[in-house]
This record gives sequence, C-alpha cells and structure tokens, in this order.
Amino acid sequence: MKKLINQVDNIVNEMLDGMTAAFPQYVKRLDGFDVLVRAGGASKKVALVSGGGSGHEPSHGGFVGRGMLDGAVAGAVFTSPTPDQVFEAIKAVDGGEGVLLVIKNYTGDVMNFEMAADMARDEGIKVEQVITADDVAVENSTWTTGRRGIAGTVFVHKIAGAAAESGLNLDEVKRVAEKVISNVRSMGMAVNACTVPAAGKPSFDLADNEIEIGIGIHGEPGTHREKISSVNEIADKLLDKIFAENIYNSGCEVAVMINGMGGTPLMELFVANKHVKEVLDSKSIKVAKTLVGNYMTSLDMEGFSITLLKLDDELKKFLNAPADTPAFVQI
Amino acid sequence: MKKLINQVDNIVNEMLDGMTAAFPQYVKRLDGFDVLVRAGGASKKVALVSGGGSGHEPSHGGFVGRGMLDGAVAGAVFTSPTPDQVFEAIKAVDGGEGVLLVIKNYTGDVMNFEMAADMARDEGIKVEQVITADDVAVENSTWTTGRRGIAGTVFVHKIAGAAAESGLNLDEVKRVAEKVISNVRSMGMAVNACTVPAAGKPSFDLADNEIEIGIGIHGEPGTHREKISSVNEIADKLLDKIFAENIYNSGCEVAVMINGMGGTPLMELFVANKHVKEVLDSKSIKVAKTLVGNYMTSLDMEGFSITLLKLDDELKKFLNAPADTPAFVQI
Repeated sequence: MKKLINQVDNIVNEMLDGMTAAFPQYVKRLDGFDVLVRAGGASKKVALVSGGGSGHEPSHGGFVGRGMLDGAVAGAVFTSPTPDQVFEAIKAVDGGEGVLLVIKNYTGDVMNFEMAADMARDEGIKVEQVITADDVAVENSTWTTGRRGIAGTVFVHKIAGAAAESGLNLDEVKRVAEKVISNVRSMGMAVNACTVPAAGKPSFDLADNEIEIGIGIHGEPGTHREKISSVNEIADKLLDKIFAENIYNSGCEVAVMINGMGGTPLMELFVANKHVKEVLDSKSIKVAKTLVGNYMTSLDMEGFSITLLKLDDELKKFLNAPADTPAFVQI
Repeated sequence: MKKLINQVDNIVNEMLDGMTAAFPQYVKRLDGFDVLVRAGGASKKVALVSGGGSGHEPSHGGFVGRGMLDGAVAGAVFTSPTPDQVFEAIKAVDGGEGVLLVIKNYTGDVMNFEMAADMARDEGIKVEQVITADDVAVENSTWTTGRRGIAGTVFVHKIAGAAAESGLNLDEVKRVAEKVISNVRSMGMAVNACTVPAAGKPSFDLADNEIEIGIGIHGEPGTHREKISSVNEIADKLLDKIFAENIYNSGCEVAVMINGMGGTPLMELFVANKHVKEVLDSKSIKVAKTLVGNYMTSLDMEGFSITLLKLDDELKKFLNAPADTPAFVQI
C-alpha cells in the first residue's frame, strides 16, 4: 500500500486538523472530538448535522458552512461515528430551533445517530432525522437493510441547508429534506477498488479489463462485474436502473451530479456528463443544474456515480440559493 | 488501460462538450474550436487567456468566469494547442482593452502562444504575455528550457483575473501577474504515474514501495526515486526546496495550495496540509489563504504538489476578490 499518510490509526485526526488549518474561516473542530462545526458557532435557525465514516471527503466536513451543514461528524474510515460524537455535534450546533440529522442509510450510522438523537432529546433539544437511500443498485447490502445512501445525500445537504437558512422551522426543513430524498436516485460503478488504509490492500480485485457495476461507497461489492465498455455504454446502464424508478419523466426538470469516487480524473467525468446530458435531452428532461467532481468519494476508488434529482419550484429555489462552504460555494 | 472514455482520439472534444453541457451559465465553446470562453461574451476590460495541453482539469477551462479567465484553449492530452486555436481565443475575448496570455513554461506552449500573439497583433489587438515557471524541482526538463510552469499558474489566473476585473489596464494587469510569478514556487511528487490515453500504459513505473520526487504535470520524470516515507517527511523534502528560494521568510504572509494530481484522495491532501501549516507556523510565516484539492492535475496521477505564494497588500486584495467560475467560486 502506497499512501500519503503518517500513521494509519491517526489519519482521521490529522485530516480534521488539516481541514481546520485550511479553512479556519469556515470550520472549527470541537475540542477532543472528531466533529467540525461552523467557525461562527450556533445561530438561531434549524441546524443540520450529518456525517458517517471517513473516506468520503469532501463529505461531510467540506459541506459545513452557510447554506449547508452546521456540523459534521467523522467516524474512522468507513466506520460509523459513535453516539457520543454525534451527541456532541448536536449540542454544539443547536441554536434553540432544533437539529435535523441527515443520515446515510447504513445500519451502524442509523443506530448511532438515533442513539445520539435520544440522548439530545433527553436534554431537551428538538431533534429530527431523515435517512437517505438513493442508491438504486441493490435493495439490501452487506451493511444495510434497504438501499444505501450515497452521493444524492449532498443534494439533501444543499437543499435542506438552504431551507434552514431561509428560516423554515424544524418540521418544514424535514419535509423539504424528505422531498429531496423521495426525488433523488443514484447509481455507481468502479474501474478500480479503493484501499482502506487499515486493510492495506484493495477491497476487491478487478481484472485488467473488468469493471464493477453498482458499487457502494465503502468498497462493498456491486451487483456484478463485466468487461469494460465505452463510458457511454456504462452510463446507459446506470441511467437505465435510475430511469426504471419512474420518477424522471419527459417534461420534468432535474439536477444532475456526476460524482467522482476519489481517483477518477475530472476529464473522464466530463466525458460522461456529455453523454448523460444527451440522454436527458433525448428524453425531454430539462437539466437545471449540473455538478461534476468529487462530492461523495470512496478513498482512492476509480469510478463514478450518476445522481438525478427531480426538481419542483421549491427544491429549485433552495438548490439555487447561495452557499459558502469549503467544498461548495455558490453565489 | 481501463479508462472511462469512448474513443481515445475524441476525448478532448467530448470533455469540452461535457463541460459546456455542465456549466452553460459560465462557459460556451467557440464553434469548431477547442476553446472555452465566458458565456456572456467579451466585455470592456483586459481579457485573460490561458490553456495548454489537456489532462490538467479543472485547468484551464474550469477557471473561465468572472474574476479569473476569459478564455481557455485546450490542446490534445499533454500537447500544446496550435496557434490558430489560441488566435481564435484571443479574438473572441478581446473587448478592446487588450489580452494577457498566461502561458505555462513548456517549449511548445510558449512557441504557439507567441505565434498566436503575433497573429493577433497583426490584426490590431493589444496582446501581452507572461510565462509561469514556478516548479523548483528542475532547472531544465524534457519539455522546457528553464523551469516548468505548474500549479502556481492557478494563482496567476486568480490574482491577475481579479486585477483585470477591477479595471486595471493591460500593462498593470501584466505587472500584477509578473509579481505573482516572481513570488510563487511549487514542487510535486508522484505515488503512481499517470496513463496517457493514447499511450495506454503508465508514463513510468514505480515499485510497490517507491515514489518519484519532483515530477512535472505531464508524466515527465522527476529528480529521483526513493522509498516511500511518511507524508510529513515527503512534504518536508518539497518544502525544503521551496524554502531554498529565499522568498518565504519569517514574518511574511503566504497563500498555500496543496494540489492533488488527479488520483489522490482529498483525505491525504488534508493530512499533508496539517503538516505544511505546522511547518509554516514554526517559521512564523502567516497563512492568509489555503486551497486544497485538484487544481492542476495530471490525468489520473496519484501524488501532490505544494505551492507557496508570498503576498503583499495588492496580491492579497486580488486573491480575496470574488470569483465565479466552474471550479473556483469565492464570495
């Protein structure tokens, strides 16, 4: 394993300090915890907390800032954060209007975030939660009951974050987040697996001409392997499963995310986007906004996922609202 | 070679269409050319044009927009754009106040951009140029006389772009760009080489425990190979060569860029930044701004470069000015 690290068991700690050192105008770290919160502290609005295992950078700490998250909790690599860490984040960001937890659907994350929510409620903090499950690849997986939450989660951060910033109350912000969740679907693939530092070898081995379709973001296997084909053909396969949801119909308007898995050149993501846009055009689906880049990564995995989000006027307004975070800025 | 592409000889074309499809609010492509210009067209200010071989995304098309570039010219992968392409960009962006070319120091780029400048001057367009050469690794290289221009070029785009936006004239914008160039230094390393699509195999081979120090951004070899050590030790080696320039002294203020080469997880870049910040702190060098991410990449190369830019009040003002481009937005 060749990685730019110091000690395997200190990566998350050093990464969080490195983020704080890079972006002191945006984030600060809670003393003694693996939690990043807004540098300016809590404010009188609904607060959003997300997080999960590390290795998905810039998720989630990179999205802490105005118009998106208020706090992000970082577990060990691909490992759920413990309830006490999430509890600390909730307490730090609550400004009296309550806290919405945005949880990706993994059994450990759901359990630990829910436990933290109970602890916070015991202290009189209003806490609600939503669970993202946008990955259409598999119905259940190694680590989940039900579908996995992947890159579509970033749209929840953006849109629910803007809703909270606009002054909506906790129930309303939750309603908006749930609307995003019911309108967003994703599917991904890998050209090469990632290497978890503590494991020291790739999560799975692919032959020189082989790709894996339907991978998750933790090195967990996908639905099947196949011989590599053109990126257009690969994108078609991902899109076919997303379209089979019957959400994205002629005349509707969508946001698109072409998400890199961490080791994929931006050039290839743009080539993929060209085709995705043409397919959407051919179906008379209007693209209101496109994101291309590393948003929800899987360490050094090479590959990408496609996310579609169906928009209505409310979602579009919040999607287009300003945001100012380390990894996503919008004027 | 496993890549997310369709045809090797159509990658740049599809990538440019994919960028335009993703960001129509920012960029449009000149019909029949591999040139991206601002979607809004030319305006009455000094215009900035940069570019070079493709494979460095988001450079340079990703930086076309308010406060940075007006046009970006894309050659084939790691190949200089031809003079006619650059000429077309100059004509498209000139709003009457003249055009500054920002050229990375590679023999082909310098020759072709200069030829285009001459063609434009023949048509009565005011054209000036600056050449970036921030890489301290080697004094000459396979492809350059003198030092190579690498990630520090992005600071030229940002700062000279803001200077142009502020209404400075061509000579003044050039003076600001040259001040950035004399104050900026970079050095990089690779954990693994990149694979140029047309070649189909890695530019060089490294053993399982080996890294290459002082690499450029075109898969050209660095100064030497060595056994991989901790990222702190690696960063120290890069910083030592940068500090040997005697530009960055106790009490000065700098901007920092921890630039990923395309295949490097963001997590590792943040770990590197933690150490770089600590080293700068120990030398009483103040960090005014830090960028961490993929800015000047080398296809799928794994590795990173460190860039330091010494600031004065003028450079700091323009560095902190707003920008609105696909790959860099600042409020």
